[in-house]
Amino acid sequence: MEKLYVIKIGGNVIDNAEKLHLFLKNFALLKGKKILIHGGGKIATQVADRLGLEVKMHNGRRITDQAMLEVVQMVYGGLVNKNIVSILQAMSCNAVGLTGADLNIIKAVKRPVKDIDYGFVGDIAQVNQEALAYLLDNGYIPILAPLTHDGKGNMLNTNADTIASETTIAMSATYQTHLLYCFEKKGVLKDVNDENSVITSLNEKNYAEYLAQNVIFAGMIPKLDNAFSALKKGVHEVVILEADNLQNIENRHFIGTRITLY
Amino acid sequence: MEKLYVIKIGGNVIDNAEKLHLFLKNFALLKGKKILIHGGGKIATQVADRLGLEVKMHNGRRITDQAMLEVVQMVYGGLVNKNIVSILQAMSCNAVGLTGADLNIIKAVKRPVKDIDYGFVGDIAQVNQEALAYLLDNGYIPILAPLTHDGKGNMLNTNADTIASETTIAMSATYQTHLLYCFEKKGVLKDVNDENSVITSLNEKNYAEYLAQNVIFAGMIPKLDNAFSALKKGVHEVVILEADNLQNIENRHFIGTRITLY
Repeated sequence: MEKLYVIKIGGNVIDNAEKLHLFLKNFALLKGKKILIHGGGKIATQVADRLGLEVKMHNGRRITDQAMLEVVQMVYGGLVNKNIVSILQAMSCNAVGLTGADLNIIKAVKRPVKDIDYGFVGDIAQVNQEALAYLLDNGYIPILAPLTHDGKGNMLNTNADTIASETTIAMSATYQTHLLYCFEKKGVLKDVNDENSVITSLNEKNYAEYLAQNVIFAGMIPKLDNAFSALKKGVHEVVILEADNLQNIENRHFIGTRITLY
Repeated sequence: MEKLYVIKIGGNVIDNAEKLHLFLKNFALLKGKKILIHGGGKIATQVADRLGLEVKMHNGRRITDQAMLEVVQMVYGGLVNKNIVSILQAMSCNAVGLTGADLNIIKAVKRPVKDIDYGFVGDIAQVNQEALAYLLDNGYIPILAPLTHDGKGNMLNTNADTIASETTIAMSATYQTHLLYCFEKKGVLKDVNDENSVITSLNEKNYAEYLAQNVIFAGMIPKLDNAFSALKKGVHEVVILEADNLQNIENRHFIGTRITLY
């Protein structure tokens, strides 16, 4: 099967113009088929502030009312996505920016209200791998914003990590898939204060031990749960690495955390 | 040659949710290959106001500084474009929202500064008809926002009427092209206060006469100049009609202004 890289770039890199430019340069140079998923970063919160909207969070997740949906649609779908696409085009990378609504790439279901009403937040129902493959087949590079749609005419806000893993799972039917989470740290760290304490390899058994010891906690847990779930559903490889390190992924001389089942 | 409709929908229809919905319903029902280009409407000005930005105009054209470029990128590329795409998807129309940067669809040149510095405004240099044809060939419906890019990493603000005519001209190499300008009036009117005074057919000779008599003036002039220029460059037909009237375009029982060279 042909190799496909699905790369998620985190919000902290998006927020730093210089880091973003360097990352996109390495992304453009990466050979073969690839898909980029970008997070939102702090710009949506800044724009909401300037518009006088109150940002509501619950357990680190944004509550998306109608006004906030319009902000994330503008910032993720219009500002961040098109900035990335235009920069990549200047690097001879034939990018196409998409939300889940475009070509019906990702259909989602509005999250049911239980204790908390998250508002216009979508849980992914289906990824349209045929449409993505049609673009890839002609050398086009899909750049996905963290937005989906419900198929009833509404856009929905969806976590970029989840879009990355679900998209990679769907593409695994026809490609040997490599899911890379690029962010501002060197990988999953044993000691959050020591950048040199990278856990270079992590399987389910180690993971359970690290969790029990509280070595891995907070925002890393859903990311890793997503990673193991992806491996069980046919994804060939999951790596968590520093954005700058993407340039070394092809020659395998990178530092980062490689996640495996066994 | 196969028929292709290129349809421009004006800002006044974009601003009215009910009218927009009705128009999109008729657009979705239109058989065969089609491309939609949308204007911006008043939302960009409203968002700029709420962000405390001063809107600068010259001869009815927006001056686009860096802050305003971000606003139009957000509003045209993120808010309006994705609203249209998600509504069309709910109508089983497999839409894909694009700016000129996506797939390098429309490359432009930043307008040179003469008397006035229009800022980040792009004059179209090239339309990528191969990429649009690749999407159309798989049944996808391109929805173009009035944004282009300069190929050097910058987005540019570009007039939607011009995007419509230049795109139609480029597509005329491989399709029998029909360029439809849909707006809130019934067509080009002899008397702006009388909706029943539609000029149903307009050739270059009539046009010159109407111009001399001041029957046609203001914003209609660049639109008609564009239309005649398009016909000279291979476009099969140009029609200016009321958005509601799109439903009658296939059976040719529409009221509107049909523009011809002779």
